[in-house]
Amino acid sequence: MSFKTTATISSFGGKLLKLTHTSSTLSCDMALNLYLPPTAESSTQKIPVLFYLAGLTCTGDNGAEKGFFQKRASEKGIAVVYPDTSPRGLTIEGQDESYDFGTGAGFYINATRVPWSSNYKMESYITSELPTHLFESFPSLDRTRQSITGHSMGGHGALTLFLKNPGLYKSVSAFAPIANPVNCPWGQKAFAGYLGEDKEGWKKHDASELLKGWKGGFETLIDVGTGDNFYKQGQLLPENFVAAAKESGHEKGVVVRYQDGYDHSYFFISTFSTDHVDHAAKYLFA
Amino acid sequence: MSFKTTATISSFGGKLLKLTHTSSTLSCDMALNLYLPPTAESSTQKIPVLFYLAGLTCTGDNGAEKGFFQKRASEKGIAVVYPDTSPRGLTIEGQDESYDFGTGAGFYINATRVPWSSNYKMESYITSELPTHLFESFPSLDRTRQSITGHSMGGHGALTLFLKNPGLYKSVSAFAPIANPVNCPWGQKAFAGYLGEDKEGWKKHDASELLKGWKGGFETLIDVGTGDNFYKQGQLLPENFVAAAKESGHEKGVVVRYQDGYDHSYFFISTFSTDHVDHAAKYLFA
Repeated sequence: MSFKTTATISSFGGKLLKLTHTSSTLSCDMALNLYLPPTAESSTQKIPVLFYLAGLTCTGDNGAEKGFFQKRASEKGIAVVYPDTSPRGLTIEGQDESYDFGTGAGFYINATRVPWSSNYKMESYITSELPTHLFESFPSLDRTRQSITGHSMGGHGALTLFLKNPGLYKSVSAFAPIANPVNCPWGQKAFAGYLGEDKEGWKKHDASELLKGWKGGFETLIDVGTGDNFYKQGQLLPENFVAAAKESGHEKGVVVRYQDGYDHSYFFISTFSTDHVDHAAKYLFA
Repeated sequence: MSFKTTATISSFGGKLLKLTHTSSTLSCDMALNLYLPPTAESSTQKIPVLFYLAGLTCTGDNGAEKGFFQKRASEKGIAVVYPDTSPRGLTIEGQDESYDFGTGAGFYINATRVPWSSNYKMESYITSELPTHLFESFPSLDRTRQSITGHSMGGHGALTLFLKNPGLYKSVSAFAPIANPVNCPWGQKAFAGYLGEDKEGWKKHDASELLKGWKGGFETLIDVGTGDNFYKQGQLLPENFVAAAKESGHEKGVVVRYQDGYDHSYFFISTFSTDHVDHAAKYLFA
């Protein structure tokens, strides 16, 4: 399925493409943004790709407009993909009842519980269908060099999709990730709704649980604001991810920076997004 | 009248303050954003201030969220003020009938025509009341070092307020400014509505006309995107500003950069905002 380009916007010397396509995985039309750095046109070599997964209530626009990834991505020669956060335009009962479940809250997992299981397959969409279409439609993108990052729910998505798919991504980083969803209200609500009450099964979608069983090297950069109310409320639990890293011998590779006074917003993300592009670049150009 | 701080948000090492106050000039409550760089707390010296005037339909939030001025302002030690674009919360008949007149479209002039003349005094608000309150409430800001920039309608505002108030601002620059409003649909509609039909009087609020009579030195940086539909439609007319500069002997000081393919959006502004902060810094720290 090819993409329709609804807009081509100049940004930091490259082009931000606003794309739409019909997803067979999600059985709906989806929109996303794709940033192509200047080297996408000038270079004879394929360019690496960084996926940015957004958080609850967001679309692919928030990161593209407010995250400020494009400046460094342009300098480094990295394409950035900004997908949406859930299927759209469906009529599933309850999909719009709350900000943290259903529309805008796909949690980057494949739902197994009716009625969500027929469409809410964001894990397959992000790791399989979307990249397949992107690499087919944009030959300048290098399918062998993908990295992933994300914010909040998208930080959970980035960490878990990296840990569930060894070798698929060259690197992972996260902004204020939901790092131990089985133990926080957001994660418990989403997993119960999308997966049912088998809490043992939830662990396959929990970054801290997945890290405990991770073999081989693991290096990540995580930023968390100390003024982040969701951090204070125990929705993020980065300490549990660090504990899991210590339990599994990965503590040296898990760099968690507690940023003094920063909140959960895109003002926080934009301040540190350059560091996360640099983190990805270190591995994409290794 | 003092400000109420409704939020303090960390951004690039400094603080973005969301402020509200009651404006006696506009006879309404107004909101704005103020970015204080790290030096606002650490430096023993007062810090200079850059005013960013936004365009049609915007508020003080657009530039703060999408303009990306904060990174360079933090590095340079410059405070950035993001005011609103019109009085708010009024009940003037016709104020909300179109995007380019009334609410969100104050045009940074003092209206002389009823019913607008009682509240639509954005020129006095931006050049007098707002800075007076800011310098009273934030002693770390240096009232002797102010610069101004803006986008579209705000670019018109920046250029005209600089030219109307010799010595008030150390420098001026603009993104896609409405550079000759007496000769474009946006300007003609606004000036007729706010000032009446005396077209000769409109010239006192037209950057190109004001530049013709400007004595002394004049140096500015103007960016215009060649893919900007409003530029193509003749709403901006930067060529007329350049012609006025030549007519008045200021052509060397008027640097207009036509940016290939860029549009009128904040993707354009964020790409070049660092250059405009640097332009202001050159004069604020001279």
